[in-house]
Amino acid sequence: MSRYKLKKQDVEDLVTGAAILGTGGGGDPYVGKLMVLQQLERGKEIEIVDMEEIDDNAFVVPVAAMGTPVVLFEKIPSGKEAIFSLNLLEQYFNKKVDFISPIEAGGINSTIPLVVGAERKLPVIDADGMGRAFPELQMVTLHVYGIKATPMALSDERGNAVILDTVDNFWAEKIARAITVRVGGSAWIAIYPTTGKPYKQAAIKGSISLAIEIGRVLREAKASGRNPIDALLDLTKGYELFKGKIIDIKRFNVGGFARGEAVIEGYDNYKNSRLIVRFQNENLVAIRDNEIIASVPDLITILESETGKPITTERLKYGLRVLVIGFPCTEKWRTETALRVVGPKYFGYDIDYLPIENRMRKISTLT
Amino acid sequence: MSRYKLKKQDVEDLVTGAAILGTGGGGDPYVGKLMVLQQLERGKEIEIVDMEEIDDNAFVVPVAAMGTPVVLFEKIPSGKEAIFSLNLLEQYFNKKVDFISPIEAGGINSTIPLVVGAERKLPVIDADGMGRAFPELQMVTLHVYGIKATPMALSDERGNAVILDTVDNFWAEKIARAITVRVGGSAWIAIYPTTGKPYKQAAIKGSISLAIEIGRVLREAKASGRNPIDALLDLTKGYELFKGKIIDIKRFNVGGFARGEAVIEGYDNYKNSRLIVRFQNENLVAIRDNEIIASVPDLITILESETGKPITTERLKYGLRVLVIGFPCTEKWRTETALRVVGPKYFGYDIDYLPIENRMRKISTLT
Repeated sequence: MSRYKLKKQDVEDLVTGAAILGTGGGGDPYVGKLMVLQQLERGKEIEIVDMEEIDDNAFVVPVAAMGTPVVLFEKIPSGKEAIFSLNLLEQYFNKKVDFISPIEAGGINSTIPLVVGAERKLPVIDADGMGRAFPELQMVTLHVYGIKATPMALSDERGNAVILDTVDNFWAEKIARAITVRVGGSAWIAIYPTTGKPYKQAAIKGSISLAIEIGRVLREAKASGRNPIDALLDLTKGYELFKGKIIDIKRFNVGGFARGEAVIEGYDNYKNSRLIVRFQNENLVAIRDNEIIASVPDLITILESETGKPITTERLKYGLRVLVIGFPCTEKWRTETALRVVGPKYFGYDIDYLPIENRMRKISTLT
Repeated sequence: MSRYKLKKQDVEDLVTGAAILGTGGGGDPYVGKLMVLQQLERGKEIEIVDMEEIDDNAFVVPVAAMGTPVVLFEKIPSGKEAIFSLNLLEQYFNKKVDFISPIEAGGINSTIPLVVGAERKLPVIDADGMGRAFPELQMVTLHVYGIKATPMALSDERGNAVILDTVDNFWAEKIARAITVRVGGSAWIAIYPTTGKPYKQAAIKGSISLAIEIGRVLREAKASGRNPIDALLDLTKGYELFKGKIIDIKRFNVGGFARGEAVIEGYDNYKNSRLIVRFQNENLVAIRDNEIIASVPDLITILESETGKPITTERLKYGLRVLVIGFPCTEKWRTETALRVVGPKYFGYDIDYLPIENRMRKISTLT
């Protein structure tokens, strides 16, 4: 597709894919799905464009929701808030936006830009800044490529509006997070305003179509009687990391983030083994019997064993039987500079990042 | 004075007066004094204008520092930060400011506007929005008269900048406070942008000249051998509330505010009596042997017995011998609407406000 109008089936598939790419975070995609389907039912069009279609001088603005998924899930948003933030930023720049971009490929933030695109009649770029979900504003490839997060606009559902212009993207995160916490845990942002040229260098191409493709492959596998997980792992070049039952779950809401860990007791091939998955909004590391077997920026997703449905971190609960999978992130996250922003060390784990392929090769050699 | 150029002696007097009007809060005025004197020494002029001088359509913007006095006192500011916030707001409105106003008559915020006025060559109005110091952004007569606190600009000493446009002034306070805490405890604001007409209805006239007058009266009393406290109480129509030694002091920094209380054991006429002064940045209530004898919005100031120097809440300490005085606030604070914003109930005391004159009359009748 170079320019493509989104269909109802695409939205269903995209939301499934976004839940997988969300690696446990990004909020419940079901809410996002309802928001987008409502737009289509009202006759609005959502146009997706290839990254190459963007003019070098085009004004590109990513839009997103910010906050802890737990809170996001409790309040059903209308989508107006994100449009309000976009309008604010246009007003501030005194310039009309040409293209909207997702900032995350996972969870509810893969659908927010679609709603804004439909309402504002603006094309949405088939790309994003993460290729997955991440908890902090500077954890985007746009940041790694030197694009400023600010001027950014933030608003809440009451209509409170803030424009931030910070000395760096870390300060954008800190101040925006403090505001988000203060206004109740979720806010709506228009961020990383930029032009086509730097955007095309920095963004992760094809994120929307990848999410749709994941959803489609899963759906078709189910329909044809093929094992959907196998189909998913084929498509994402992923690995089955673990199978088991959740026997403990800890959560603490700290500084505007949903942090915690799930302890999973293995069965089948994983009997007598334990897997711990630690998260900060998103799943960060998978530790099997004290050995790290996967870590950020690679993707770790927990699925319900029975249904194959991805589980967001806020839905993890005692007794749930789960399948944990992992798959490689984009190469843009694997540079030294990028790993300083999203590698395990940033999240407080004193280990070097090893691509999941290498870790899996090592493990399969050992067993 | 209708238009008056501030002299060095005025600054010395003003700072003394501002410390009295600061009722324990507003930060250490000594820092503010240095900032203003530096301007005069560099040959800059500070022009003070009467409120009546302002054209109905003039663009008026108050500037101030925001934060806990403890933090304000630890960092010596250059004044550039407040100018930065003012410039931000001008940019946002795309309109030049005609007059600067103090928002507080107490502490460091009585001097910040003078520094900005000197640097930006803008006249400073002889008025303010409190007639004293108060801890929260909506606690200004401008709010009571319906003027919006936003659009407001906030910046920190690093250069982080935020524009807020909130649904009401309480939300301006909440969001700006959260940002201030996040950036380290103090920030610089340009707030309540308005025009001459509503400003003149809402502001408290003569705050700068009152502060200068207080300082002058104290200085002249000392020089002539008259009791300076008597002179001060004459000028402010105030009362001696208590004399004693601080025997306990509690502090907690909560939600960006310096809260706490001082327990004072009486001597002289107050032997066998105890006074508790509770504060939130500023002194809020004076409780003598379980009876409230003065409360916000009336002014309660604690002075060192020996020197007559006003003491900010962060300087209160065990063993200090103090004199506590109280004096009536402006009539603008005594309406029902205003008392909802700054009366004792807002601060969590379940009592009706009684003007200090009435409380004192009652007490003198009883004794």
